[in-house]
Amino acid sequence: MKFSRRITTMQASPIRKLVPYATKAKSEGKKVYHLNIGQPDIKTPQSFFDAVKNFNEEVLEYSFSQGMPELIDAIRDYYKNYNMDFDKDEILITNGGSEALMFAIIAIADAGDEIIAPEPFYTNYNGFASAVDVNILPITTKAEDGFHLPSKSEIENVITPRTRGIMLSNPGNPTGVVYTKEEIEMVASIAKEHNLFIIADEVYREFVYDGLEYTSFGNVKDVEDRVIIVDSVSKRYSACGARIGSIASKNKELMNQILKLCQGRLCVPTLEQVGAVELYKTDESYFEEVNQEYKKRRDIVYKKLSEIDGVVCKEPKGAFYVVAKLPVENAEDFVIWMLRDFDLNGETVMMAPAEGFYSTPGLGKDEVRLAYILNEDDLTKAMEVLKKGLETYINLNK
Amino acid sequence: MKFSRRITTMQASPIRKLVPYATKAKSEGKKVYHLNIGQPDIKTPQSFFDAVKNFNEEVLEYSFSQGMPELIDAIRDYYKNYNMDFDKDEILITNGGSEALMFAIIAIADAGDEIIAPEPFYTNYNGFASAVDVNILPITTKAEDGFHLPSKSEIENVITPRTRGIMLSNPGNPTGVVYTKEEIEMVASIAKEHNLFIIADEVYREFVYDGLEYTSFGNVKDVEDRVIIVDSVSKRYSACGARIGSIASKNKELMNQILKLCQGRLCVPTLEQVGAVELYKTDESYFEEVNQEYKKRRDIVYKKLSEIDGVVCKEPKGAFYVVAKLPVENAEDFVIWMLRDFDLNGETVMMAPAEGFYSTPGLGKDEVRLAYILNEDDLTKAMEVLKKGLETYINLNK
Repeated sequence: MKFSRRITTMQASPIRKLVPYATKAKSEGKKVYHLNIGQPDIKTPQSFFDAVKNFNEEVLEYSFSQGMPELIDAIRDYYKNYNMDFDKDEILITNGGSEALMFAIIAIADAGDEIIAPEPFYTNYNGFASAVDVNILPITTKAEDGFHLPSKSEIENVITPRTRGIMLSNPGNPTGVVYTKEEIEMVASIAKEHNLFIIADEVYREFVYDGLEYTSFGNVKDVEDRVIIVDSVSKRYSACGARIGSIASKNKELMNQILKLCQGRLCVPTLEQVGAVELYKTDESYFEEVNQEYKKRRDIVYKKLSEIDGVVCKEPKGAFYVVAKLPVENAEDFVIWMLRDFDLNGETVMMAPAEGFYSTPGLGKDEVRLAYILNEDDLTKAMEVLKKGLETYINLNK
Repeated sequence: MKFSRRITTMQASPIRKLVPYATKAKSEGKKVYHLNIGQPDIKTPQSFFDAVKNFNEEVLEYSFSQGMPELIDAIRDYYKNYNMDFDKDEILITNGGSEALMFAIIAIADAGDEIIAPEPFYTNYNGFASAVDVNILPITTKAEDGFHLPSKSEIENVITPRTRGIMLSNPGNPTGVVYTKEEIEMVASIAKEHNLFIIADEVYREFVYDGLEYTSFGNVKDVEDRVIIVDSVSKRYSACGARIGSIASKNKELMNQILKLCQGRLCVPTLEQVGAVELYKTDESYFEEVNQEYKKRRDIVYKKLSEIDGVVCKEPKGAFYVVAKLPVENAEDFVIWMLRDFDLNGETVMMAPAEGFYSTPGLGKDEVRLAYILNEDDLTKAMEVLKKGLETYINLNK
């Protein structure tokens, strides 16, 4: 008996593989600050829990395959605030942004087809694609450029006759980049000229700092039928455990096709949808508060990184991540060393080595991703521990 | 821009495609008895809702990719009652039985590979497989045989060098067949001799009538490393909207591979798992009561079908479905006619045409699937309406 090639060649989660080192550190009494995962500590709006608790049916029935009409309407209203106008049949509810990405990939690409994506990218892009035999071709971006996109011709060089789409997150996970209007329009023009779909992963839409302008692919003219917007309540409302996502596209025929995938898995959980309806009614003041909080955290992380000799990193402008190039040869070795061999007054820090976010072999070897999802006090301590740890490590390896 | 071949060739849900006719019938004031879908009317155990209502965390966090340890333990205990002993790492929680099936298919078959399955089969087997470019090869079974399996050699004739597994539901959806111990052992021996995995969809395990012996693939010796058990709380606890399923296998390396798929989609909803833990503690008396109820319904349906001239159907022994061959040329036409043109005192019946459950072209054209998920009174009325409708239709078409 053999397993499929596609599953055996699938990469195990690079974010989760170092967990045993953290577990061991904790069992030895160390406090570990987790900067390695994107699990925010922000409270989920109480309205979610209230709605779930008020659910009073006696039978927990299947929901509609396309999603609950109330939730679809709530999302339509949400998009209207961003000047995007979706019909009822242009939105499908999914099991998190994850299923939305998976369905979008299946719908536009056959086995052996390709999707291009700026690297470093959300590591599960690779997982979803390889599970269904689609290849992700990377467009390399660099720490020195703040991970902004390369020129149009450099992107076009990656495209082949089997390329079906371009997939990108904006604001970016893992880089925190926020693409400029010009970059978004460049991508749109490439999609038009090369007949590609755009899978726009905009789950961090509200997490943009410094008053920067944000351009959604949903606001770009002339590519409406090519744009597939992937969204989720996970980060927006700190409701990662709800697993409620969505796909939105003005391409009705595409949505009809994806509906077949939705029907295949019957529906998304009923209770989580009931709760999510209320999330979408959350007052805008919630985002302002959360945004302020993340901005403060971003400032703490970026300021400390800037103080460390040899670290390369531009100020991240969105999401709650930053990828930093460290003055070490192998960032994974450093991350393990921090957990196994280092502590500052009994405390250490866990980060995600960035190599797993690249698909070009060797790239990102000296980089880490930090998620700033701790409160200010903890984050300040964590960054001090990281600074001291890095200095000690560099001295040891001189 | 083109869509993928795999999505365009995927069949739309045959169970759901006639819904517009039912909607129209209702808008005209007809009462429609739904025998077309497997949504039970049995109450979900209150313990599920209580557990969800008692959830008191402030942040709805990601759960573990493999599933909540408490839920995995609860499922291990459940299986122990059936003399199956699974380690913690031999069970993974999934988004319903649907995701369990999808992950099992991806793990054992590459694009172009095959899985064999007795037809008529659960229609979404085809959907899951074609979404990931796997072909389902049918082993035809017949109404006249009560949909029991054909001989060993007939099954072996279907196998090719690209066949990776055999997938079957027991008790069977859509047929209500319960395979004998001999049939299960025959399938196991075929799997061994031809080096195949067995995807055992046993979500209706408790729904077996007339004191019949039930044999799970989890109790067959010598094939432990080939058996992948797909399970779900949907029907067992009438909790279809929870979307909690699982995969269990003694093949640890397989489970390690599937864990990568689980990590890719991060986790299953937290609250639904919290509720499901309690479901698995439901007292056995619940099953006895539910079982009695379904047996009564089965008797109503089967008795009435037996009274109608020209209907071919053996007494179904499990699940809550029956496939009946009707004395009509085209069952879909008849189903539509029942909704559009017929009523008995303002009432009519909706059924699922069975053709969509077959993959051999032309088979099942004169068959329907009935789900007996209504209370006795309604079901008795529904079957009377069906009998009168069928008699009228036959007379009209003489």
